[in-house]
Amino acid sequence: MTYCVGMLLDEGLVMAADTRTNAGMDSVGKFKKLHCLENKGHSVFTLLTAGNLAVTQAVVSLLTEHAKPAGKVKDPDNLFAAKTMFQAARIVGRAIREVRKMDGEELGATGDAFAASFIFGGQIGKQPPRLFQIYTEGNFIEASADTPFFQIGEHKYGKPILDRVARNDMKLGDAAKMILLSFDSTLRSNLSVGLPIDMLTYETGTLKFEHSKRIGPDDPYFKMLSSEWSKALRTAFAQIEAFDI
Amino acid sequence: MTYCVGMLLDEGLVMAADTRTNAGMDSVGKFKKLHCLENKGHSVFTLLTAGNLAVTQAVVSLLTEHAKPAGKVKDPDNLFAAKTMFQAARIVGRAIREVRKMDGEELGATGDAFAASFIFGGQIGKQPPRLFQIYTEGNFIEASADTPFFQIGEHKYGKPILDRVARNDMKLGDAAKMILLSFDSTLRSNLSVGLPIDMLTYETGTLKFEHSKRIGPDDPYFKMLSSEWSKALRTAFAQIEAFDI
Repeated sequence: MTYCVGMLLDEGLVMAADTRTNAGMDSVGKFKKLHCLENKGHSVFTLLTAGNLAVTQAVVSLLTEHAKPAGKVKDPDNLFAAKTMFQAARIVGRAIREVRKMDGEELGATGDAFAASFIFGGQIGKQPPRLFQIYTEGNFIEASADTPFFQIGEHKYGKPILDRVARNDMKLGDAAKMILLSFDSTLRSNLSVGLPIDMLTYETGTLKFEHSKRIGPDDPYFKMLSSEWSKALRTAFAQIEAFDI
Repeated sequence: MTYCVGMLLDEGLVMAADTRTNAGMDSVGKFKKLHCLENKGHSVFTLLTAGNLAVTQAVVSLLTEHAKPAGKVKDPDNLFAAKTMFQAARIVGRAIREVRKMDGEELGATGDAFAASFIFGGQIGKQPPRLFQIYTEGNFIEASADTPFFQIGEHKYGKPILDRVARNDMKLGDAAKMILLSFDSTLRSNLSVGLPIDMLTYETGTLKFEHSKRIGPDDPYFKMLSSEWSKALRTAFAQIEAFDI
């Protein structure tokens, strides 16, 4: 399983992914699920992936192979040639469909599902950053002020905190804190989501990725966050009067 | 969908269920999912149900038809004749298998699943109360001090609070408070779980059901709990330092 959250803020984007993969309890691995493609000063793209790892890695490889910052050849699948984030999201969708053409039939034949989902964000030139959730079929929805975040993978345990706190006018650091709390709840309740967490924050207008961090079990901030939050929840719980049976 | 929680405490049992049923978004109903069978002074049983409503109602009806406090006829399916809670749980399991015999084939034929799950608790005479989660196959597991609670239905949103706070030495009123918070998170994140909540608390040794309540949207305690908890979470969130991007 996997847990990823992407969020669109007035200030920019926050993208986070765990790194655990598993095919059964006894086949556990560590793989990156947060990917970046950057053409500094022109456009930046970031992709969170969940689902069949062979599928998601193939999608990322396809996108990477086509992405040529100085591309002189006209390539409709070159992310760096996309004029808008909508066009860019369609390129990601096409890459998923391309992988399905390559591997879908065989996966179906062995009873495996062609399953993958993506959160895709970025910014092109002076246009505002945009954020999309892209489905296994290659179509997508876009985040807005009403719903500024998307989750993929094991999303339920960590949703209550997002439902309560998420707002698109939060500071990047506060959004990252909230998303780490959402991960903390998920990690406690589901073994298939595991540390480290890859955390990327992107500031609108910079057109480069400057802030990314891998947060492991010894990360002092995450340890503090986790323990302070537990303490705060227990205190809050104790302060509310008991149910009168 | 449904959300039910049952918990075994040193002090007794807490059982809670929502009341929303739905077959699609435009077929929403209200049905009781918390059921009680009581032979005052001798034995008490309580059952939470999730899954196909026709299946779970049939199970409850079967159990009720067989349950005869003053039964002189030997009936192996009479809950009130069970000598132990283990025997009682087996009777519930047999009722599920009986319903499968009646309806399972037809359900399968129309592509519907025979799906139901149960949390079953109670006390017989001077024996301690016990709590079971009973599967659609009719077999079951039992709660213990390590894991004093079971959830059925839409369980993920409300699990983090239970994972953090649940202990078998809690007071009944505190356990009920915790379970209502677990419902609060679930209600906020999933439309298919809805108020009112049926809440039953049972005190070990009393051998009668004295405390049961239906908690609707205007319940002053639940409103206070929900708003205080939101406030406390927001305060706790604000007090923790932001992630340093």
